[in-house]
Amino acid sequence: MTTTQLEPAAALSGLRASKPERVTIVVLSGDMDRVMAAFIIATGAAAMGMPVTMFFTFWGLNALRQPGAATSAKDWMRRMFGKLNRGGAGSLPLSRFNFGGLGAWMMKKVMAQNKMPGIPELIETAQDLGVRMIACTTTMGLLGVTKDTLVGGIDQLAGVSTYLNEARQGSVNLFI
Amino acid sequence: MTTTQLEPAAALSGLRASKPERVTIVVLSGDMDRVMAAFIIATGAAAMGMPVTMFFTFWGLNALRQPGAATSAKDWMRRMFGKLNRGGAGSLPLSRFNFGGLGAWMMKKVMAQNKMPGIPELIETAQDLGVRMIACTTTMGLLGVTKDTLVGGIDQLAGVSTYLNEARQGSVNLFI
Amino acid sequence: MTTTQLEPAAALSGLRASKPERVTIVVLSGDMDRVMAAFIIATGAAAMGMPVTMFFTFWGLNALRQPGAATSAKDWMRRMFGKLNRGGAGSLPLSRFNFGGLGAWMMKKVMAQNKMPGIPELIETAQDLGVRMIACTTTMGLLGVTKDTLVGGIDQLAGVSTYLNEARQGSVNLFI
Repeated sequence: MTTTQLEPAAALSGLRASKPERVTIVVLSGDMDRVMAAFIIATGAAAMGMPVTMFFTFWGLNALRQPGAATSAKDWMRRMFGKLNRGGAGSLPLSRFNFGGLGAWMMKKVMAQNKMPGIPELIETAQDLGVRMIACTTTMGLLGVTKDTLVGGIDQLAGVSTYLNEARQGSVNLFI
Repeated sequence: MTTTQLEPAAALSGLRASKPERVTIVVLSGDMDRVMAAFIIATGAAAMGMPVTMFFTFWGLNALRQPGAATSAKDWMRRMFGKLNRGGAGSLPLSRFNFGGLGAWMMKKVMAQNKMPGIPELIETAQDLGVRMIACTTTMGLLGVTKDTLVGGIDQLAGVSTYLNEARQGSVNLFI
Repeated sequence: MTTTQLEPAAALSGLRASKPERVTIVVLSGDMDRVMAAFIIATGAAAMGMPVTMFFTFWGLNALRQPGAATSAKDWMRRMFGKLNRGGAGSLPLSRFNFGGLGAWMMKKVMAQNKMPGIPELIETAQDLGVRMIACTTTMGLLGVTKDTLVGGIDQLAGVSTYLNEARQGSVNLFI
C-alpha cells in the first residue's frame, strides 16, 4: 500500500517536471519600455532557475540588430524600410513621450544615474543566464534583416512552430 | 496492485486531456503587424492540432469587419467613431511607419512578392483549420459595430466569462 | 484498494489546488482601452472565483496614481517626466483616435450612456472582489512616482520576482 501511495506522487512529480514553469516571451514591440520589461522578466526568471525562451519578431528584432546595421535587401521598398527602421538595442524609442528620441535619452540618463542596466546590458545578462533567443525568420525576410546584421549569441532562426513547441511546455507565455 | 498503479496514470492522462495545450488569443490591437502575428500563431497552432480560440475586442474587431462597413449606431458620437475607425482586414494600419497607409501598403506589396498570405487569407485559413473566433459584445456596443457588418464565420458573440472559461483550460494564453 | 484508488484523485485535487487557475496581468500600457480590458478581465475572473494579481509597471502605474498627483522627484528630468506623464485613472488616453483627449472623452460619454463602469469604478470593484494590485518599485523610481501619490488599497510595492512567483502558479498570465 505504501508503494502505491507513493506512485501517484512520483507520477505527479513527473508531470511537474514535464512542465517546469517554463517562460516564453514573444517580443513584437520595438519600444524601449516594452523591450526592457521583456528582458527584466526574462533575466529575473532565468535567475530563479526557470528555463526562458525569447522569440523576436517584427520591430522586436531591432533589439537584436547591430547598431546602425544597414539592410542588405535589394528591392527599394525593403531598403527604404531598412533606412527608417533603425536597429540597435541602445536606440529604441519610448512608446510614450519619445519626442524624437529625447524622452528615450532622458530615461536612459535617469537609469544610468540610478545604476540600472540598459537594454544592451540586459541582453548580455540574459545570454549569461542561458536565456534562449530566437529570431523569427518570417519577419526577418519581410523587413530585410539578415543574420550577419544581428548581434552575436542568437541561438536560432526559426518560425512559429518552434515557438509553439516551447510555449506548449510552459505556462508563463507572454506576448509583448 | 497493477491496477492501482495504472490508476494514477489513467487519472493523469485524464488531467492532461483536460488541459490539451489549448491556445487562446485576445486580439485588442487593430494594428496590421499585431493582428498578423495573432493569426500566424493561431493558424500555426491549429495546424499542429491544438484547439485555438481568438477573442476580438476593441480595435481588434476591425479585422473582422467587412471592408468599408459603416456603423449602424444612431447617436452622433458612435457614428463619428465609426467613420474614423474604418474596418476591413485588408486595410489595417502598421503600428510603426504607417505614414497614412503607405507603410502598410508597402509591407503588403513585399508580402505579395514573397507569396506570403495577407490577413484576409490568414482569416480564411484559420476558419478552415477550425480556429474559433469570438467577437466581444461589450466593445461591439461601445464602438457601434453590429453583427451584420462582420465577415461571415464568426462563431460567437460573447463576453469576458466566455473568454475566461476557455483560457482557464489552456496554458498558451496571449493578449495581443 | 478503494483507498488507493482515492489517493491519486486526492493527490490530483491537491495538484489542481496548487494551480487554481490563477490569473496574473502585467499592466505596462497606460492606454484607456488596454487598462479597461485589463480590469474587465481581472474583475470577471475574480467574480468567477479565480485568484487574480495585477502588476502595474511603466505607464500602467498612471491608472493607480491620484488624479493630478505631482511627482516628488528632485531632479529636473524626472520632474519634467512627471509633468508630462499625468496620472489618474479617469484621464488615460485612448491608444487610437485620442485627438488630445477628445476621443477618450467621447468614449467615456458613450460608456456612461450605456451604464458601463469606467476605470475608476472598475478599480473599486476589483478591490471589493479581492484582486491583488502590486505596483512595480523599479519603474516607480524611474518615473518619479512615490507611494503617497498612489490611490489607496495598493497591496504591495514589489519587483519582478514577486510577479514571477505568482505567474508560475497560474496559467492565465497576460501582458497588456
